[in-house]
Amino acid sequence: MADTAATPDMLSWTCPAPLRDRPRVVMGHGGGGALSAELVEQIFLPALGGTARAALTDSAAVELGGARLAFSTDSFVVRPLFFPGGSIGDLAVNGTVNDLAMSGARPAYLSCGVILEEGVELDTVVEVAAAIGAAARTAGVRVVTGDTKVVEAGHGDGVYLNTAGIGLIPPGVDLRPERVVPGDVVIVSGAIGLHGVAILSERENLRFGTDIESDCAALGGLVEAMLAVTPDLHVLRDPTRGGLAASLNEIAVGSGTGIVVRERSVPVPPPVASACAMLGLDPMYVANEGKLVAFVPREHAEAVLAAMRGHERGAEAVIIGEVVEEHPGMVVARTALGGTRVVDMPLGEQLPRIC
Amino acid sequence: MADTAATPDMLSWTCPAPLRDRPRVVMGHGGGGALSAELVEQIFLPALGGTARAALTDSAAVELGGARLAFSTDSFVVRPLFFPGGSIGDLAVNGTVNDLAMSGARPAYLSCGVILEEGVELDTVVEVAAAIGAAARTAGVRVVTGDTKVVEAGHGDGVYLNTAGIGLIPPGVDLRPERVVPGDVVIVSGAIGLHGVAILSERENLRFGTDIESDCAALGGLVEAMLAVTPDLHVLRDPTRGGLAASLNEIAVGSGTGIVVRERSVPVPPPVASACAMLGLDPMYVANEGKLVAFVPREHAEAVLAAMRGHERGAEAVIIGEVVEEHPGMVVARTALGGTRVVDMPLGEQLPRIC
Repeated sequence: MADTAATPDMLSWTCPAPLRDRPRVVMGHGGGGALSAELVEQIFLPALGGTARAALTDSAAVELGGARLAFSTDSFVVRPLFFPGGSIGDLAVNGTVNDLAMSGARPAYLSCGVILEEGVELDTVVEVAAAIGAAARTAGVRVVTGDTKVVEAGHGDGVYLNTAGIGLIPPGVDLRPERVVPGDVVIVSGAIGLHGVAILSERENLRFGTDIESDCAALGGLVEAMLAVTPDLHVLRDPTRGGLAASLNEIAVGSGTGIVVRERSVPVPPPVASACAMLGLDPMYVANEGKLVAFVPREHAEAVLAAMRGHERGAEAVIIGEVVEEHPGMVVARTALGGTRVVDMPLGEQLPRIC
Repeated sequence: MADTAATPDMLSWTCPAPLRDRPRVVMGHGGGGALSAELVEQIFLPALGGTARAALTDSAAVELGGARLAFSTDSFVVRPLFFPGGSIGDLAVNGTVNDLAMSGARPAYLSCGVILEEGVELDTVVEVAAAIGAAARTAGVRVVTGDTKVVEAGHGDGVYLNTAGIGLIPPGVDLRPERVVPGDVVIVSGAIGLHGVAILSERENLRFGTDIESDCAALGGLVEAMLAVTPDLHVLRDPTRGGLAASLNEIAVGSGTGIVVRERSVPVPPPVASACAMLGLDPMYVANEGKLVAFVPREHAEAVLAAMRGHERGAEAVIIGEVVEEHPGMVVARTALGGTRVVDMPLGEQLPRIC
C-alpha cells in the first residue's frame, strides 16, 4: 500500500518508469495501475513479442478457422474467498466474462485452473466450485476444461483461481481505444466503488451504517443490449483494479484524446462515499466488478443510454463526461465547485488482492 | 506423499472413493491420479454440470463461429522454477500446447496468467518471461493475452503460471478414448521418466552418474506428422502427472478395453532406471513433458511409427503394447520374466509439484 504514495513522475505510465530500480516484486505490481503496466510493458511484452497496445485491452481478438474470437484470462487471488455480494468463484466467472464482453464478444466457453493450498477444507472447495457453477449458469457460459494443482501449506492462500474465456465477436463490432474521438460521450452503467469497499469492509470487519455488497455481476447481456442499438460503440471497459480512474486513463492514453468527467455526475452511493471519506480512499480508484464505462458516438448516446437503463445491469446508467481535443492522454474532472483536477493513473492499487 | 501408500480399494478411480472422509486437501489431490480424479468427479464436475468423460480428456472440443476448436488450461507450480532441460516457462507453454495437440488440434494462441509472490526478484520474472517467449516461438504459438496478480510473501512460491490455449481441430480428426478398440497398437514417442527424475534430482541435489535433463518439449509438430499419415488415429495422450501408468489407465477406463504393455519394450533410459531403483520409484509413474502415447489402428501402425521416427520428437518411438478384449478397464504389463502384473492408476503423485 505504501506504493500508492509515490513521487509525481511515477504517476503516468506513458513515460518509462524506473522499474529496474525496484529489484523485487511489490504488492503494487498487481494493482492494475502504473506499476502493473511497467511490469507488462517492460518485462512481458518484450519477451512475448507483443506491442504496447496489447497491454491496453482486456482481451485479445484473434481469428481461427474463419471465426473472429475474443480470448482473455485473469487469475483471482481475492482475500477473503467469500465476501458480501460474491466470492472468488463469482469473480472468476464474471471477471473473464466481462473482459470478453468488453470486446463486444458474446462470451461462450471458460477454462478454470485451480491452485489449492494443502490443508484447505474440502467444504471450502465445494463452496467455491458451486459458486463457479452458479455464476457460469447465470452468465450463460460453460466451463469446459479445467485443471487442479496443490501446493504445500504456506505457499498459497486456500484457493487461487484462473479462468480464461473465448467468445465470438459479431460482425461490424470493433471496440478499441483508438476509435475514441473528441465528441464521444462517456457513460457509466451504474454506481461505482461497491466491490472494493465491500471487500475492505469484510476484511477489516468495518461497518459503514449500511451493509455494502459487491456489484460482482456478468455484463454480457448488458453489452448485447447496447450493441443492439448500434454496433458502432467505440470502446467499452470494466473498471476493475485501479477503478474508473485507471480505465479512463488507459483510454485517454490509448486514444490520444482528453477526457473530461463531471465529478457530480459520477454515481457514488452515499455508503461508498462515507466509507471512502473515512478511509482516505478516492471512489474513482476503487474497484468495480459489475460495471462498465462506454465511449459512444454522440449521435447514439441517448439511444444507448436508454437501452442500458432498460437492462437490469444498467438501470442506473448515467452520462459522466465527454471526450475533448484538449489535454490528450489526460483525464480531468470538473469539480462541484467549478474547478478542475487531474485524475491520474494510479500507481498501484489502494486495496491489494481485491480480485 | 503418504497418500501413494493407500488401501487397495482406493487404487481404481472407477469406483467412488471416500473423498469426504478426507476433510482437507492433501498434496495427492494435485497429483493427477485417483485423488485428483475424485476431486474433479465429486466436486468440480457436479458443480459445473460436466460429465465424467470431460475429466478424461486433456482439452475440450467446442464449436464457435463454425470453427471446431480445442480449448485447454493448466496451472504450473513446479519447484524449482528452473531445472535441467527447462523451466516453469517452458512447461507452461509446452504443457498447454501438448494438451491441444493431443486432441489433434494445431495449437494457435495461448493466454498466460501470472501469480507473483511479493519479494520475488524481478530478474527471476524476466527469466521466466523470456522462457515463455522462447518456448512459444519454438512451438509456433502466440501468447496473446495475459494477467498478473501479486500475493503477499508467504502466500505463493515465487512464480505460479497458468496458460490456456486454443487451436483448430482439422476436419476428420476425432481423438478420444471411446474410439479405442481391441487390436489397436500402443506407441510411445520416446524415453519415459526424464522430466520427473530431472526435477527430483535438481530439487534434492542428487546425481545419478549421468545428468538427466527434462524432456520438456512441444509436440504439435510430431502430431501433425502423425496425422499426415492418417487422420484416423484413435487417441493421443501426453503422460505428464501420474506418468504413462495414469495415461494408460485413463484410456483403458475411457474405452472399456484392456491394455497389455510389454514391460521390456517400454523405453526407460538407464540413468532413469538407476535413479528410480535407488529412490523406490516406478518409471511408469514418473512424469514426462515431451512424450506422447498413441493408440493407432493396427493397419496404420507401421506407417505412423515410421512418420514418428522421422520427426525429431519421435526419433525413438516404439511399439509398447496393444489393446485387448480381456480385462476391460485394466492395464496389464507382461514382465521380462514372462509374468504379468497389474499397472494400477496411481493414487496421487510420487513427486509433488513437478509441473
